[in-house]
Amino acid sequence: MAKTYKEKAKKWKARAKALEGQVAATPAPAPKAKVTLVSPLAPKDGFPALPAIAGVEFATAQAGVRYKNRTDVMLARLAPGSVVAGTFTRSATRSAAVLDCQAKIGLPAPAETGAAILVNSGNSNAFTGARGWASVNALSAAVAEKLGLPETRVFTSSTGVIGEPLPHDKIEAALDGLVAGLAPGGITDAARAIMTTDTYPKGAMALVETEAGPITIAGIAKGSGMIAPDMATMLVYVFTDAAISQKALQTMVSRHTDRSFNAITVDSDTSTSDTLLVAATGQGPAVGNGRSASARAFEKALGAVMLDLAHQVVRDGEGATKFVGITVTGAASDADAKRCALSIANSPLVKTAIAGEDPNWGRIVMAVGKSGAAADRDKLAISFGKIQVATDGLVDPAYKEEDGAAYMKQEELEIGVDLGLGKGRAKVWTCDLTHRYIDINADYRS
Amino acid sequence: MAKTYKEKAKKWKARAKALEGQVAATPAPAPKAKVTLVSPLAPKDGFPALPAIAGVEFATAQAGVRYKNRTDVMLARLAPGSVVAGTFTRSATRSAAVLDCQAKIGLPAPAETGAAILVNSGNSNAFTGARGWASVNALSAAVAEKLGLPETRVFTSSTGVIGEPLPHDKIEAALDGLVAGLAPGGITDAARAIMTTDTYPKGAMALVETEAGPITIAGIAKGSGMIAPDMATMLVYVFTDAAISQKALQTMVSRHTDRSFNAITVDSDTSTSDTLLVAATGQGPAVGNGRSASARAFEKALGAVMLDLAHQVVRDGEGATKFVGITVTGAASDADAKRCALSIANSPLVKTAIAGEDPNWGRIVMAVGKSGAAADRDKLAISFGKIQVATDGLVDPAYKEEDGAAYMKQEELEIGVDLGLGKGRAKVWTCDLTHRYIDINADYRS
Repeated sequence: MAKTYKEKAKKWKARAKALEGQVAATPAPAPKAKVTLVSPLAPKDGFPALPAIAGVEFATAQAGVRYKNRTDVMLARLAPGSVVAGTFTRSATRSAAVLDCQAKIGLPAPAETGAAILVNSGNSNAFTGARGWASVNALSAAVAEKLGLPETRVFTSSTGVIGEPLPHDKIEAALDGLVAGLAPGGITDAARAIMTTDTYPKGAMALVETEAGPITIAGIAKGSGMIAPDMATMLVYVFTDAAISQKALQTMVSRHTDRSFNAITVDSDTSTSDTLLVAATGQGPAVGNGRSASARAFEKALGAVMLDLAHQVVRDGEGATKFVGITVTGAASDADAKRCALSIANSPLVKTAIAGEDPNWGRIVMAVGKSGAAADRDKLAISFGKIQVATDGLVDPAYKEEDGAAYMKQEELEIGVDLGLGKGRAKVWTCDLTHRYIDINADYRS
Repeated sequence: MAKTYKEKAKKWKARAKALEGQVAATPAPAPKAKVTLVSPLAPKDGFPALPAIAGVEFATAQAGVRYKNRTDVMLARLAPGSVVAGTFTRSATRSAAVLDCQAKIGLPAPAETGAAILVNSGNSNAFTGARGWASVNALSAAVAEKLGLPETRVFTSSTGVIGEPLPHDKIEAALDGLVAGLAPGGITDAARAIMTTDTYPKGAMALVETEAGPITIAGIAKGSGMIAPDMATMLVYVFTDAAISQKALQTMVSRHTDRSFNAITVDSDTSTSDTLLVAATGQGPAVGNGRSASARAFEKALGAVMLDLAHQVVRDGEGATKFVGITVTGAASDADAKRCALSIANSPLVKTAIAGEDPNWGRIVMAVGKSGAAADRDKLAISFGKIQVATDGLVDPAYKEEDGAAYMKQEELEIGVDLGLGKGRAKVWTCDLTHRYIDINADYRS
């Protein structure tokens, strides 16, 4: 029997209402995570306004090594009288550029010569055999010729995919433009040109007041993940106008590397290309000998700039959502304390618990136990921030799980471990291990 | 103006049709991953039919330590004349039960006494201080009394959550039933009673033909993740009727531990409770001295059972989808080869690349470089199965990326690294690092 329009209208209205209910009950699909998002841990104030350093000029270019529509080469020229100190990856498979820098850094440099630093992103020139050396030598020679420097005073770094020959001719073709563009104010552009998978450029600065006037320090870094060899190698360049000997500068740099770049970890992996260069132009006030007030003030400021940049690398750790400081005290030695702290910082179980905001102190006990550091289970104490979690190898009587759980919801965490054995202490920094880390490293290459 | 019913029917029909289209276009929400799925890498043939071992009886019980509606305690009685060998976690924070086993394993045992092994799941009795020792002593004393054994011949293990006092009274209350239930055939039930986060029970066996007749070996294991302290501690129990001295058995067990349980890794984390006990009842044929044919055959079979169980632990690795063998040859020493192989096996970047089926050999170079083993970048060779990927520190001229990509789609992978320096070699096994690992370890506890 044919329905009336009234019946049909009723039927279709009912159908439409039912479907409306169904649509309303269907959750919207979760938005796909974007790879280009800025890390939630990026400095809230953005990139700092870095001062020009007397005696340093920068230029950047789009050489097209791998990326399109962005700069991928930076050149820094250091005025005559500059000294350069550095520290490098300990990897046994380090790249030709690293080996070349290491060889050059210790050579005596005539006071009247300057120096240059050339860095490209997009290709790390690692695991490229003899061709890797040929590229480093070709670029060093070309920069030396254009700037009138000895080749031994040209330092190069490369970061990006590994195992592919570096198209160094593209960089050479950009050199004339780079040299023409050299200017004192380009350090911010340089920070952008050296980025690979970084989600934000990294910079830090300090002013040191001395009797002879202010010393200026400015540095830039790249790195995201500690440290993938293919796209997230850590590179750091710090510049200052201080007048200081190469030897004194190197001593300070080495000492603070242990407390900064060698005290951070994202995933325990070590790059084949990690490089830190610190250049002092000597155009500002002189830093006195190691015991002078100016030397102490300068070293403190240099250490602060290095630590700031190191923290920025962790904050850009692949997939990171938590920035975690781990302090170990009461160890038999400082070395034991650092071993223990890094064991905690590198433990996948600790890092996933932090990602899950789980105050799982049992995993910290585990990481202490496996570290190889001297430890006595029954003297161990653990704290989350100011919350005492465990004392004398047992849950602290006053500890409440809900306090720990509330603490773990913070974006910045402080984990304290006291081994109760001696006076050794160390602090390291890490981030959590999240699904995004798996996304980035399992699902993408280059 | 009021619409006619015809117009209304048309309007509601159009609305319903539009909504139908919208509903059809909405993808069904992805099913939530279930934690109780069996690992895709579980042995295809399921749990093996394990033979009874003359002189060994088993019983299991539901003591209710933590779990409901499942067995959580196993008791094994070893006949007089049995010897027990073992290896244990190297963690500095190992549990009271481990320390107790270690102390007892080396004590001289009168030939006329038997022995017993008591294992509970659900609570690891780790990081429980003096109460932990009290629980171990109470259980040892209770089992010793019920079975007429000296306390020094009762070995206990506990696995499960840490930091909570073990309710050992619940286990003691189950002892009478356990003793009454002791029977030769219960090893399969025992394998189930010791499971925690394992997705399948693990067993292996071997028959060794000797001139004096066959020797039987049967073993069980639990472990899932290498090795979380809270729920995935590795425990292994192997039984044989062989007649062998404790010293000779211990030598064989230690040797094969290095090649089996100390050559596997899921996440580089080390448990506070890892325990391997091997018991020989002496009721079968005698194993001659170390150079005899029967001793060689027995050791080979024992090693195979241990390796089989070790592989089953990796195959139940948290979130694992790939079973990966890593062979390093050409190292300066065997120790260097193992260091290098474990560095590759533990690298989050290598493991995520495997999860993503990415033939990312650059990350293997990185892991070799960071391992601390002697290596020369320009002598390094890498293979995936039979595919030569890199030779003399360079991509092999014949290597095609698509061949590597096709190989990585397999469920079982063999990665080969030759360092080109010496004769040191080692093989280790691992699994990949997937989103499921993060799910399991970030989102759940206990």
